[in-house]
Amino acid sequence: MGGDFGPPVTVPAALMMLKTHPGLQFILVGDAASLQQELSSHSYDTSRIEILHASQQVEMDELPSQALRSKKDSSMRVAINLVKEGRAQACVSAGNTGALMATARFVLKTLPGIDRPAIISTFPTIDPNKNLRILDLGANVDSSAENLVQFAVMGSVLASAVDTIQNPKIYLLNIGEEEIKGNELVKQTATLLSNSKLINYAGYIEADVLHTGEADVVVCDGFVGNVTLKTTEGVARFIMRIMKEAFMRNIFTRMIGLLVKPVLKSFIKRIDPSRYNGATFIGLNGTVVKSHGGANVRAFACAIEEAVMGAEKNIPERIRHEVEQLLK
Amino acid sequence: MGGDFGPPVTVPAALMMLKTHPGLQFILVGDAASLQQELSSHSYDTSRIEILHASQQVEMDELPSQALRSKKDSSMRVAINLVKEGRAQACVSAGNTGALMATARFVLKTLPGIDRPAIISTFPTIDPNKNLRILDLGANVDSSAENLVQFAVMGSVLASAVDTIQNPKIYLLNIGEEEIKGNELVKQTATLLSNSKLINYAGYIEADVLHTGEADVVVCDGFVGNVTLKTTEGVARFIMRIMKEAFMRNIFTRMIGLLVKPVLKSFIKRIDPSRYNGATFIGLNGTVVKSHGGANVRAFACAIEEAVMGAEKNIPERIRHEVEQLLK
Repeated sequence: MGGDFGPPVTVPAALMMLKTHPGLQFILVGDAASLQQELSSHSYDTSRIEILHASQQVEMDELPSQALRSKKDSSMRVAINLVKEGRAQACVSAGNTGALMATARFVLKTLPGIDRPAIISTFPTIDPNKNLRILDLGANVDSSAENLVQFAVMGSVLASAVDTIQNPKIYLLNIGEEEIKGNELVKQTATLLSNSKLINYAGYIEADVLHTGEADVVVCDGFVGNVTLKTTEGVARFIMRIMKEAFMRNIFTRMIGLLVKPVLKSFIKRIDPSRYNGATFIGLNGTVVKSHGGANVRAFACAIEEAVMGAEKNIPERIRHEVEQLLK
Repeated sequence: MGGDFGPPVTVPAALMMLKTHPGLQFILVGDAASLQQELSSHSYDTSRIEILHASQQVEMDELPSQALRSKKDSSMRVAINLVKEGRAQACVSAGNTGALMATARFVLKTLPGIDRPAIISTFPTIDPNKNLRILDLGANVDSSAENLVQFAVMGSVLASAVDTIQNPKIYLLNIGEEEIKGNELVKQTATLLSNSKLINYAGYIEADVLHTGEADVVVCDGFVGNVTLKTTEGVARFIMRIMKEAFMRNIFTRMIGLLVKPVLKSFIKRIDPSRYNGATFIGLNGTVVKSHGGANVRAFACAIEEAVMGAEKNIPERIRHEVEQLLK
């Protein structure tokens, strides 16, 4: 039900995924009438789609604490309950991030040895076949060095299991001034990571080389990660706007713009944020993926794909196993 | 002497500035022979250029503490001494940032009431006539809320004096998750800023809307600011590279690329980082501006322009006055 569009986006995205994933089944959770109405305009294999009615809905601006307390029959809560009960292997939502995280954490609990879940997503790199995984993107602020080490372990598991990278290279996001190489948090985390045999720790990375394809996973505090993510979105939007303005200047530049469209299309496809939609809440007893609220059908399908991968590769179980090694 | 190129960039940039600023005079500090050699290939008003020999030079990878201890006759140190002695009104360098900051702080000292200097620079916005000022860009990590309030005062002074903005709008960089609106540092700083009558505090801003032109000044911790700056540089470089690749794909796209060049040129000019070169070390008893090490002549001239503005507007004195009000 969530996001800017609700069922008109989420339902067609699910149906699109049925075609490419023969083993996939969906339980659509939310207002049954709305879901039924959206489904009725499509043809699909009815045996693979089930509707589960939920009488409530978490608003996009609702406080997480309030949603947790008073929305016990929200689509979000019911969907996450399904994961807890083992009736679903993953939950995907385009709804309120804070409420989704609070609900997921409350219902599913963190894995043993994991103090806090994190949000992990992918950034494109100059290598079209390689993405970067970065966490935490905002689940936590004021993290401890121990939290960041756990994030490193979780990122490493995801990169090796989902992205099939052997012994993924884990970097710590830092600033490059010589004397003051990082704040206390980064320095303490670097010491812990350097001593860890479980993680292929490759050192510090600066934010201007995130896109070079050098790192497989980058770890940072949720405040810094969220700022990095939003800066990236903002700069990309700003550059696209300035470029558009350059082509809209006059009739001559407009004509050139028409000519250049097919070239720019392939370029825009490479940096299209909808291709990188789907942030996984990692560190929980279950797979929960958050789609951008403004996602279109194709973008929401990417978020579902992320959830399918997380469930197929059994990420929570792998993390549980890795963390056991860490605690030994 | 500093930066990737030394006198072949810094000297022509100074000579360029002589033409546009009739009252301007330069003391070129560094290896006299190198400076003289570079000057000899230009014609200029010799009465406005003086050479001051310095026997040492701080290397780009030298530790600030080491430079401070063992490079007492470096071009950097001698130039900053000139500011302290009142023989120069400002110092511009493309050298080692950490060493420049450590030397400036050691020689000039911070202004009364300012605990730590900060690095402030400008970002472009969608309004071609408006830039954003952002600080701290990396002089400090692990700042306190009191530090951030001082940064806000200093940014406000610079925006009103140099950018001639009346009552500049000051925002605090934050992340937008509902429950967890920022870390402890941001929350404490917001409380202090809300209660301050000296500052036109406008609230939180997220990193994805820095370029909309809404904010005049954005305040953040140096770690977060440096990550924001570097992410911006990295994303811009990444997008330009992917775009270039799209035009280089084949003979057809290359031909379109030639045609589109004049349009893209005006676009690139808007986001050209050399136009935004020159970061001011603010909060010291004197004006010191750091140029990007890789700056070309035009970019280094922008850094000089920033120093001229800082000196003409007497920024340190204005900050001293504002902070006195703050402490009352």
